[in-house]
Amino acid sequence: MIIGIGPSSFAQEDKSPLQRLVDAGCTVVPNPTGKRLSEPEIIEYLARHKIEGLIAGLEPLNRRVLESARPHLRAVARVGIGITNVDVQACRDLGIAFSYTPDGPTEAVAELTLAALLSLARDLVPMNRELHLGGWPKRIGRSLAELQVLVVGYGRIGGRVASLLTSLGAQVLVCDPFLPKDAACPFPVVSLADGLAMCDVVSLHCGGDKVLLGKDEIANAKPGLMILNSARGELVDESALIAALESGHVSKAWFDTFWKEPYTGRLLGMPQVLLTPHAATYTRRCRSRMENEAVTNLLLGLGIANP
Amino acid sequence: MIIGIGPSSFAQEDKSPLQRLVDAGCTVVPNPTGKRLSEPEIIEYLARHKIEGLIAGLEPLNRRVLESARPHLRAVARVGIGITNVDVQACRDLGIAFSYTPDGPTEAVAELTLAALLSLARDLVPMNRELHLGGWPKRIGRSLAELQVLVVGYGRIGGRVASLLTSLGAQVLVCDPFLPKDAACPFPVVSLADGLAMCDVVSLHCGGDKVLLGKDEIANAKPGLMILNSARGELVDESALIAALESGHVSKAWFDTFWKEPYTGRLLGMPQVLLTPHAATYTRRCRSRMENEAVTNLLLGLGIANP
Repeated sequence: MIIGIGPSSFAQEDKSPLQRLVDAGCTVVPNPTGKRLSEPEIIEYLARHKIEGLIAGLEPLNRRVLESARPHLRAVARVGIGITNVDVQACRDLGIAFSYTPDGPTEAVAELTLAALLSLARDLVPMNRELHLGGWPKRIGRSLAELQVLVVGYGRIGGRVASLLTSLGAQVLVCDPFLPKDAACPFPVVSLADGLAMCDVVSLHCGGDKVLLGKDEIANAKPGLMILNSARGELVDESALIAALESGHVSKAWFDTFWKEPYTGRLLGMPQVLLTPHAATYTRRCRSRMENEAVTNLLLGLGIANP
Repeated sequence: MIIGIGPSSFAQEDKSPLQRLVDAGCTVVPNPTGKRLSEPEIIEYLARHKIEGLIAGLEPLNRRVLESARPHLRAVARVGIGITNVDVQACRDLGIAFSYTPDGPTEAVAELTLAALLSLARDLVPMNRELHLGGWPKRIGRSLAELQVLVVGYGRIGGRVASLLTSLGAQVLVCDPFLPKDAACPFPVVSLADGLAMCDVVSLHCGGDKVLLGKDEIANAKPGLMILNSARGELVDESALIAALESGHVSKAWFDTFWKEPYTGRLLGMPQVLLTPHAATYTRRCRSRMENEAVTNLLLGLGIANP
């Protein structure tokens, strides 16, 4: 069985997912470029090696690509939670077993979200910078118990963030239009507009690519709002965000996902914005868990016994 | 009743502690210098205004100072937890009611400790810096579930840190020679040497000014150790620390307390060290709680009804 590996970071920290493929008798052909494959590159790669199972990253797996890889390609296992780069319907139509790893990122993303909020609330980054430059800038921060936090999207990650914040004393509200009316949610459920008007912090943990925080939503939010975005850049209107940061109406923000990556836009010039390079799932443990989960899914999809 | 106020930051964020003194009929004479009073300054200040009750910060309140303020000075209420600047025995001998606020800082110090550990474990500060400079440096960090943490000093703050870290999945060990043998501690209790040999992180939450982490202790610690110090600089040997950071044996550190403050030593040149200016208690809520607690204690010590 010939297995392709899209993500260049696969098994970089922990070799076990790769070893399991080898132990199952697979021939593994890693992505030869060491970076994300473009559409022509992935088409060429899948065809040249007659890839039968693909461990997928963020390379484009649209209908054209998937059709071009027939009949050899029989299973695609995405390492990660976002699946906007995969045409899942096309997989179904073409009989390609598709899977992803929705549980893997929860812990790591929730932790980085907490790290970002604590860091912003206590001015950790500016105090550290000023000390290294020889200053001694005592700043009064906020305890989490002083903050109301609106969690948008009460899925796996949003739920974990809400419970961590609560254990630290923050008051959490939840906004999630997809939450069933009878769902057991231990937090007050509010509309986006009501939540934004009341809360000091909004943390995004939802899917989709519709703008949730546009000019109007930001304008009607509580002055001094902090925005945390580990979900996707598109959920926030970039120009409206920058204007609100300039006026101070949005006081601080953390972005891990952007409108275009690598991000080189205007947030780079704003010290009140904490920036990370789409690294919310980048812990050794999380990568290893997601990769092993993807290997299990891929072998299952190919009908191979799991070692 | 004439009340002096040592700390220049008193009631800066929240006026209520000051108002309560006024409401109780006190005349309040703030520290006129706006900074920490030296021994001659505090002697002059207490005498000139015939201060009867003092809200104390870190100014020296040794036997000479306290004796010089007799007979008018009858109560000293320290805002904070450290009491090395006060001769408590002299207060007792001179009939001056002394109090401090040991509960106030727990939440804020535990939160900043957590912020620092999460930030170090995920390389938040270097990733943010590199992004602001136009880079896109994905770094693989560690989840707290990958870390064993040695909490040294299982008092109020150490206990809170241990429980927060546990709820985030870290494995916590405790070292505390003053812990009674039959104390209910839900964590494994180890010696300092054993704990350092096993753990990825050591977090200091004990009193005293004896060096705990000297050359030998650091040399025998697990390679790659991270050190968190919000307790006091003197607990760590500065030269041994710097040598271990240079060799990489200690991989990262956070210091909020120093050997001399403001700190201007060699840690300033080490980007792997996160530095904050003795600001662990600096949240609006924590300052307000400690100040109000000190006001309550002072009025009690002076025998005035508490408004």
